Order: sequence, then C-alpha cells, then structure tokens
Amino acid sequence: MKGTHPLTPKETRILIRKGNWDKPTAGLAMGYAQANLVILPQKYAFDFLLFCQRNPKPCPLIEVLEPGQYRTKFLAMDADIRTDIPRYNIYRRGKLEGTVKEIKNLWESEFVSFLLGCSFSFEEALLRSRIPIRHLEENKNVPMYITNISCNPAGLFQGPMVVSMRPIPPDKITQAVQITSHYALVHGAPIHIGDPAKIGIRNLRKPDFGDPVSIKKGEIPVFWACGVTPQAVVMKAKPDLCLTHAPGHMFITDVLNEELANF
Amino acid sequence: MKGTHPLTPKETRILIRKGNWDKPTAGLAMGYAQANLVILPQKYAFDFLLFCQRNPKPCPLIEVLEPGQYRTKFLAMDADIRTDIPRYNIYRRGKLEGTVKEIKNLWESEFVSFLLGCSFSFEEALLRSRIPIRHLEENKNVPMYITNISCNPAGLFQGPMVVSMRPIPPDKITQAVQITSHYALVHGAPIHIGDPAKIGIRNLRKPDFGDPVSIKKGEIPVFWACGVTPQAVVMKAKPDLCLTHAPGHMFITDVLNEELANF
Repeated sequence: MKGTHPLTPKETRILIRKGNWDKPTAGLAMGYAQANLVILPQKYAFDFLLFCQRNPKPCPLIEVLEPGQYRTKFLAMDADIRTDIPRYNIYRRGKLEGTVKEIKNLWESEFVSFLLGCSFSFEEALLRSRIPIRHLEENKNVPMYITNISCNPAGLFQGPMVVSMRPIPPDKITQAVQITSHYALVHGAPIHIGDPAKIGIRNLRKPDFGDPVSIKKGEIPVFWACGVTPQAVVMKAKPDLCLTHAPGHMFITDVLNEELANF
Repeated sequence: MKGTHPLTPKETRILIRKGNWDKPTAGLAMGYAQANLVILPQKYAFDFLLFCQRNPKPCPLIEVLEPGQYRTKFLAMDADIRTDIPRYNIYRRGKLEGTVKEIKNLWESEFVSFLLGCSFSFEEALLRSRIPIRHLEENKNVPMYITNISCNPAGLFQGPMVVSMRPIPPDKITQAVQITSHYALVHGAPIHIGDPAKIGIRNLRKPDFGDPVSIKKGEIPVFWACGVTPQAVVMKAKPDLCLTHAPGHMFITDVLNEELANF
C-alpha cells in the first residue's frame, strides 16, 4: 500500500510498550529474531542457566540479564523486558495465576531474565529455500510433542524434551538439515527424522501442544527441539514465581535472523 | 613398536590419577578432546557462567558441574576432576600460590567446576586437511596476544579477549575458516584475519603468552579466541580462591574431537 512500510523492531516495541498491540507477534518486524522469555527469582538462576548450558538444543540462550536488570544489552539497546512484550503469564508454584500486559508492578530486584531463541528464525530460512512449512500453510500452530528423550537435569530442573514437527518431502530433508544446522541459537538441526515411535510419540495426529497438521504422501516427519521444553521443565519444578511471555507473544529483537546463524 | 598401543582416555586418566604422569598432556589419547578447568566458589559461579554464556568464543563451556560435584557426567563417566589432571594451579585473590598434583585436600562442598574446550581439537582437524600449524612444526607453544577487543562483562568478570595466532597460507584460509567454524565448542571460527594492529596487537614477534613463531612470506596471521581469556579474566577479578589446571596439563575426556563438531 502506498505510504505504508513495515515497522522497525524499535517502532514495534514502542507500539507494544504503549499497550497498542495485544496480539501474537508472528509476522511483525519480519527478518528480525523474536525471543522467548523466562524470568525467575535469583535463587533458581544458576540451576536454570546450568540447565540451558546442558540442553542447548531445546534451550538456546540468546541473552541473560544480570539480577534485577530489565533492559536488554545485546538483543536490543532500548528495550524494557517488563513492558515490551504484549502479554505475560504469571506462574506461582507451577500454576498459571494470570495473564497481564506488563510486569512493572511485579518487578523485584532479584529477578533474572532469560531470553531464548525461537524457531520463527529458522522457519524464515526454510521458506526462503522453498521448503514447505505445513502449519504456516494451514494457518495453525506448529504441532508439539512430549518425547521419551530426557533432558540433562540440573538442580531442580528436569523433564522430557518437547519437540516440534514439520513434515518434509524426502528430496528436501538434506537441505532442511543443512539450513537449520546453521541456526544453533534457534534450536539448530533436527533431533530426529522419521519414525515418531522411536522418540515416544504414539500419534502424530494428537500433539501435546499446538495443532495437528496434514502429512502428505511420502513426506517424512522431522522433529526439532522446541522452546516449550524449558517452560514445561520450569513449571514442573514449581518455583515460587515465574514470569514468561504468553505463548506466541514474543520479545522482538534488533538482531537479524541471519545474525543468529552460525556459519 | 610391537606390543605397544596408545592408552585410552580412561587408562590415561588412571595413570595421571596415580601420579605417574607429571607432564603436559599434548599428544596423549589422540583423537579425544582435552579440556581446560576453572574451579570457583559458588558465590562466583552464576557470574562466571553468565560470562561464558556472553563470550562463547573465548569461553566455550563443555561441562559445568553442580556445586560440590567433582565427578564429570558428560565428558567422562568415571573421572574425578580433583585427581585426574597432572598439575593444578592454586590462585588466591588472583595470585598464584602454588602448583599441586591433586586437590582432594583443598576440596570444598561449595566449589563449582567449569570445563572449557581447547584448541587442540581444531588443530587436529586442520592438520588432517594439510593446513600447517606453525607452532607444532617449530615445537613451541602457540603465540597468544592480548587484544583491544573487550569481552562482554558479567558481574565481577571483565577484560580483553586473548587470541591465539596461526600463520596460514592465503590459499588455505577459506578452508581453515570452514573447518574451525564446525568447532564452536573449541573456540570456533577465527575472530580476525590479517592486520594485527586492527585488534591492538603491535608486534607479532612479542606475544603476551606462549612463543613467537615464524611467518613465511605471503602467509596471513589468523587469530582465534583463546582459552587463556577466561583465566586472565578470573585472575583480574581476584576471587578469594580459584583452582585451575596448570597450563598445558589438561583434563582428558572420553569425547572424540569429532563429537565436539557442530555439523
């Protein structure tokens, strides 16, 4: 449209900060990475950081703020993670207590914020190479499954790996592996290709999270480690308090997806 | 020689544990990764873990043990990091107090052990592709330089990045970049290629650590982030106590160099 142009990441964050965007962030600031947020009180921070270090595929840290800090330093220069996400979930002892539009009034000087990479970044790279992304084609959420693969535990934090699934035609699998291998900071290469039963998935039509998608004749299900894993693990550990983004309502960074690639 | 065969990593660690190997570990258990060790009291552990997360090229963590743990879980199953390294340095408030053959009597339940990847792994991969490693040819330590590149600080920990330098013929540089790119857990791709002055190095013949090596006509100095960086940063922070391996006296793992590659 004449005269319109997509908002920059900074403009998008200001829109969100002012409370003028209360929807999921998919499709905003295209080309820029979006991030998952987990905020925990300091007493849990070392164990959670260690959990991420031990499980980099499901938990790819892209920024960790020091205790009490709410301004990002690496992913964006002017951002406030207390206000710059459209919706936040509040969990107490593992239970969802509510969803809010900002967390300034909940902020404590001992909070540690963890930002994790999100598969939006590698999906953009797959699409650029004409690799189909079924859930986008069908306008659904990606299907996600709890596997029989245990994460490496750390302190309080333990649990199974959650994976996302994308059906890929056989002649595109090599390329899908090659492309996502370059995005270690957004879950990286697939953790499993083919037989779902091998990783404890009984029925692809019944995902544990997200929506089922159609699998065309000959397509192979390809599984990537999923950012729901750290959230599931944190909920299971039942910390006194945990704040996260609400699903799909991500933190928009100033970092290009391409800048997260590890060539 | 008839009847001799190289020791496995486990056999090598037992030799070291019994006090029967008091020399550097280069060349032992070829093909297996060796690791740097940093042990800090728990009060420093979150900040140091954060420092490594923020500076993955100089500080590639390959295992972090929980407070008080001295047995590795990922890099080796039967190892005791209090005894399985030939020599340890003891630093108090940043000053070297002594060098010992084991640290069992110094061990405290609040110690956190960090193991970091070592460039031995990528050097083996470079050699396999006939890329010359000058300091090995000249039987020297790799030359290392303090740069004008600041690490991303975290809590107490801050300081300049230290790099190692290897002169590479121009027609081999692409390959050297490609190969080391696959070893993110052992410093990864070069951080600088060419003009030393650009990164604050005045004289290649006067390294800050290690030995000068000859640079042949037409060769380009190629610089990689170096594992001396975290040690320099920790010393500068002057923690009450810090235990490390003595230079060149590394921890030998059961992990193949190839298993550290991020293909």
